[in-house]
Amino acid sequence: MNSFGRIFRISIFGESHGSAVGILIDGCPAGLELCQRDFQEDLNRRKGGGEGETGRIESDLPYFESGLFKGRTTGAPILIRFTNEDIRSEHYKNFRQIPRPGHADFCAAKKFAGYQDPFGGGHFSGRLTLGLVAAGVIAKKAIEPVTATARLVEAGGDEDPSRAVKQAASCGDSVGGLIECEVLSVPVGLGEPFFDSVESLLSHMLFSIPAVKGVEFGSGFQSARMRGSECNDMLIDTAGHTATNHSGGINGGLTNGNPVRLRVAVKPTSSIARPQKTIHLETGEPAELKIEGRHDTCIALRMPVIVESAAAIVFADLLLQEQKLGRIVSS
Amino acid sequence: MNSFGRIFRISIFGESHGSAVGILIDGCPAGLELCQRDFQEDLNRRKGGGEGETGRIESDLPYFESGLFKGRTTGAPILIRFTNEDIRSEHYKNFRQIPRPGHADFCAAKKFAGYQDPFGGGHFSGRLTLGLVAAGVIAKKAIEPVTATARLVEAGGDEDPSRAVKQAASCGDSVGGLIECEVLSVPVGLGEPFFDSVESLLSHMLFSIPAVKGVEFGSGFQSARMRGSECNDMLIDTAGHTATNHSGGINGGLTNGNPVRLRVAVKPTSSIARPQKTIHLETGEPAELKIEGRHDTCIALRMPVIVESAAAIVFADLLLQEQKLGRIVSS
Amino acid sequence: MNSFGRIFRISIFGESHGSAVGILIDGCPAGLELCQRDFQEDLNRRKGGGEGETGRIESDLPYFESGLFKGRTTGAPILIRFTNEDIRSEHYKNFRQIPRPGHADFCAAKKFAGYQDPFGGGHFSGRLTLGLVAAGVIAKKAIEPVTATARLVEAGGDEDPSRAVKQAASCGDSVGGLIECEVLSVPVGLGEPFFDSVESLLSHMLFSIPAVKGVEFGSGFQSARMRGSECNDMLIDTAGHTATNHSGGINGGLTNGNPVRLRVAVKPTSSIARPQKTIHLETGEPAELKIEGRHDTCIALRMPVIVESAAAIVFADLLLQEQKLGRIVSS
Amino acid sequence: MNSFGRIFRISIFGESHGSAVGILIDGCPAGLELCQRDFQEDLNRRKGGGEGETGRIESDLPYFESGLFKGRTTGAPILIRFTNEDIRSEHYKNFRQIPRPGHADFCAAKKFAGYQDPFGGGHFSGRLTLGLVAAGVIAKKAIEPVTATARLVEAGGDEDPSRAVKQAASCGDSVGGLIECEVLSVPVGLGEPFFDSVESLLSHMLFSIPAVKGVEFGSGFQSARMRGSECNDMLIDTAGHTATNHSGGINGGLTNGNPVRLRVAVKPTSSIARPQKTIHLETGEPAELKIEGRHDTCIALRMPVIVESAAAIVFADLLLQEQKLGRIVSS
Repeated sequence: MNSFGRIFRISIFGESHGSAVGILIDGCPAGLELCQRDFQEDLNRRKGGGEGETGRIESDLPYFESGLFKGRTTGAPILIRFTNEDIRSEHYKNFRQIPRPGHADFCAAKKFAGYQDPFGGGHFSGRLTLGLVAAGVIAKKAIEPVTATARLVEAGGDEDPSRAVKQAASCGDSVGGLIECEVLSVPVGLGEPFFDSVESLLSHMLFSIPAVKGVEFGSGFQSARMRGSECNDMLIDTAGHTATNHSGGINGGLTNGNPVRLRVAVKPTSSIARPQKTIHLETGEPAELKIEGRHDTCIALRMPVIVESAAAIVFADLLLQEQKLGRIVSS
Repeated sequence: MNSFGRIFRISIFGESHGSAVGILIDGCPAGLELCQRDFQEDLNRRKGGGEGETGRIESDLPYFESGLFKGRTTGAPILIRFTNEDIRSEHYKNFRQIPRPGHADFCAAKKFAGYQDPFGGGHFSGRLTLGLVAAGVIAKKAIEPVTATARLVEAGGDEDPSRAVKQAASCGDSVGGLIECEVLSVPVGLGEPFFDSVESLLSHMLFSIPAVKGVEFGSGFQSARMRGSECNDMLIDTAGHTATNHSGGINGGLTNGNPVRLRVAVKPTSSIARPQKTIHLETGEPAELKIEGRHDTCIALRMPVIVESAAAIVFADLLLQEQKLGRIVSS
Repeated sequence: MNSFGRIFRISIFGESHGSAVGILIDGCPAGLELCQRDFQEDLNRRKGGGEGETGRIESDLPYFESGLFKGRTTGAPILIRFTNEDIRSEHYKNFRQIPRPGHADFCAAKKFAGYQDPFGGGHFSGRLTLGLVAAGVIAKKAIEPVTATARLVEAGGDEDPSRAVKQAASCGDSVGGLIECEVLSVPVGLGEPFFDSVESLLSHMLFSIPAVKGVEFGSGFQSARMRGSECNDMLIDTAGHTATNHSGGINGGLTNGNPVRLRVAVKPTSSIARPQKTIHLETGEPAELKIEGRHDTCIALRMPVIVESAAAIVFADLLLQEQKLGRIVSS
Repeated sequence: MNSFGRIFRISIFGESHGSAVGILIDGCPAGLELCQRDFQEDLNRRKGGGEGETGRIESDLPYFESGLFKGRTTGAPILIRFTNEDIRSEHYKNFRQIPRPGHADFCAAKKFAGYQDPFGGGHFSGRLTLGLVAAGVIAKKAIEPVTATARLVEAGGDEDPSRAVKQAASCGDSVGGLIECEVLSVPVGLGEPFFDSVESLLSHMLFSIPAVKGVEFGSGFQSARMRGSECNDMLIDTAGHTATNHSGGINGGLTNGNPVRLRVAVKPTSSIARPQKTIHLETGEPAELKIEGRHDTCIALRMPVIVESAAAIVFADLLLQEQKLGRIVSS
């Protein structure tokens, strides 16, 4: 299903080299002020263009096709559409027969019996995250004073991402990265019992972002190696604040009033300039693949804003469900 | 929401010290042979009773209240109910005012304004996973020949779990653990675009299990430190098999025909025998808490079967959605 | 799917001659006082036992298996279970080969390849509505001061139902009926745009009740024969009250502050004492069917309370979605 | 929620006088051939332009923004967008203070605290059905050989619609109408137990269409006046065909292999040329309202194709759920 959320509900669409990508947002509170300018900063953060980032140049202007009136949300579904402009499909012609390692090419071809749009990864492209960031901008405004902030804390295992990226780029390779996200001013008691734990909803959304291969909350994988006496966070006041935050602000699937902390593992960009071995799908013969085109050396560089957006969207929905965010906002 | 799944859809209910816990399963294929005996092995694996595991003794017999006829599923909803027998609520009397560190006590009290059932963690108890295991038994039968197998690979950072558990127990402490799960014979192309990626659905389900704080697929967090040339899995045949499996059997959110591999980080049991510092919720005064009762030194010991169940349930739903599992099975 | 609702969400289970029927209620506000006595009146109205109603005798006592603590809802899922006691399956033995006209026997056998529970209609029995009435009792309490009231206004086309029922019974036949339901004290603006119009949600729920074949709001089918100048309801105050109520209290899918009025057409009970012609499924030969057992002459007699329940459940969900009903109630 | 469906899932958006209206279709089988020409006939049927129909002139060309590749569906979400061209908002300026009787103006203003787009009814306009018809075109192709056909059988109570329309138009009034829809070649056993009965799903969708106030299946409201001996349909062969079709092809919520027959009551167009009495929302003073603009004398004239579309969409979803329609079609 290409939709997510219970009240604040988003549906994503588009292909990398099709006419458009975008998002449909249902259940957004009415009365929220919105203009194109609100989107610029986050869309620019996602766009990249710096060292280690794709050379594809898109204006990425959001068109509001519905759900806005006189600069405010109306309560009706909001369709945001981005046109695709800088399309150079010639680089993608071979991938139907010679699938790119690490990409969805092979799986999509099998799933959709060859009917999928193969250019630029089609619907499986990272370009789809544009809609997610747009929805994130709206969600961030809606959930104020709750804030979501993410940053890249490591690339290729190095705490200095630019060094790691430069090294990888120099040998036609790519690197993965680690993103940390913190959500502040979270009220106690968000989250629904069992299947809609806060961790469940956040991870569901985060793992839909292309290239994410791991998600942890608080001390996460480290807590598997800890003792209970270390890992338990000691309560220090009646508001629920704790001396440590190994739980990442979540106990029993519910927010506990401390910052929600999570980390996301991003694998290295699958498309690399170096020649790779693969096989030809029809003949089964070994083949060498050289991926042209414009690709990120480290896709994780552009992902903090996507992770923030994902988090903000989940919290918009949780706050609406818990009635801590109204159906009407006076912003 | 206490439900999960699109076609094979489960809803969980119950409290640790209430009259019953269980699960309602909707959309299970008709014609599947089922009897109480089918459940015994997996329920026993979950029950524990060995060293480092709770002393609570429950018969854990599944009662089928609906959806079965002459030993086969009918296609109507299946209600499985387990009665709670060995209840000793006297140990829980203090936790409404003096919340246990690492537990949902505080958050649940805030969320439900004090109306929650506090005994034994109420609805937030690990006992709820009994229903999950029961649904898992059914899912495992339904998805054959696809299999899900999980095991504890580490406890307290030690590859010899029993040693770590013994040490922790000896000082009234607890330890976390790491569980690895592998799903075999998975067809290519399961998973739905974007929000219902296979990773999204599995992690959603896995993070609903109490004590899970991290989930990764394939090389997961390690891949954040890798180069693309290492991390990309080279295709070796036209069926999609790859020389390595850093992707954990999933590309672009879709299964790629290789084993699906995931790891789950389980935090140490929050209830420990050692006295802990907390505060009194009414007075705000510091308090010392000594948790009596019967608790696992290492809850992760009992969790492999729960992780398997979670995985099998997700795959049952994915196979039904992709029409690789029929609405009628002749078992 | 055997579930309905977005926040106040119910899932139904059971078979007529199985061990139990019941309902699982998710998302009920916490803090609502509930005891078995609250259920007695509505369950009795559904049970019937008067002239024209089934002779099956069941105690219909609701067992609360979860979600209640000290007489109040906890916010966790509420499982209500009714045991089946007065089961006489001997009357049902022939219906697998000789399907009863007007029943689900034939369709269910085809859908579930013969694996369905055939006794007493199995999962397709009117007995399933017991769970609906139980959920309705809870919903009615939750939505106060909004009230839902239904009554039988016609049976067999006669405004004096008892006369029509007596006549039909005397010749081993059955009659249908017409039920009118009114929901009062409804706030303006409930309902979600387009697919979740108030009419859509109410009709979805009402048509799930066995034997319902028509649903109309306000002037309904009559309005198809009216002029706009007659059918438009004139506004008479700024609270939205109108001089007439042809719209049934709903405009553009949203409540308009007037009473919500709907009518439900109930077909005659399919099981009649008179011999009926049908065919033998295996041989294709004509067969005569004589249905023994205990059946209602007019099932509509017992249905007002079911219609009320259905309405109350939908309004509980709508009020929660619109945040006019809190997640915590102090009743 | 502005979405409907479980596998074949549609989400609607747009406003009458905004930049666009349209629909997002998720879960459509891959491989279906589609071109703009396929949409022309049904969009024209909806557009009207004849006597008794609106004078608004729109080209109603569907733009496919995603989900198509080389003239076939890819399995990814399909966004269909229609631009609004012939917008004359000047006629709508007064309706925020002086709500039109029978319209959503008043309710929407209350629900969205005045933030809704009021022009042309905004999101509550009948123009939204354009997206429904577009989705219907796709659904009709997907469900072949199942067919859905609807026609207007009555307007203003007259079996000769044109006469009734002419009379109403001559006095500045409007009329309602009755639409009959028949779905043929339906396999036995579609529909899900209880809440997703075929009647529930169809009525949910049908009541989302503006102006629909009643839905009945088979003999519907007439069956409330019948005897069981008349109303029961006698089986005549082992394929499930019956001598009569009072059930409308549905028993126990499941299709029975006979034509599915339903009737939809459409109220008269609310906007009429004749002056109407209403009140001024701010002052509470009586006001006279004269609606200018271009409106249908009988909106029901344009609705058969919308009813067909609604039915086809529901059957596409039911067939996919029952696995009688594959995720890949070779058309």
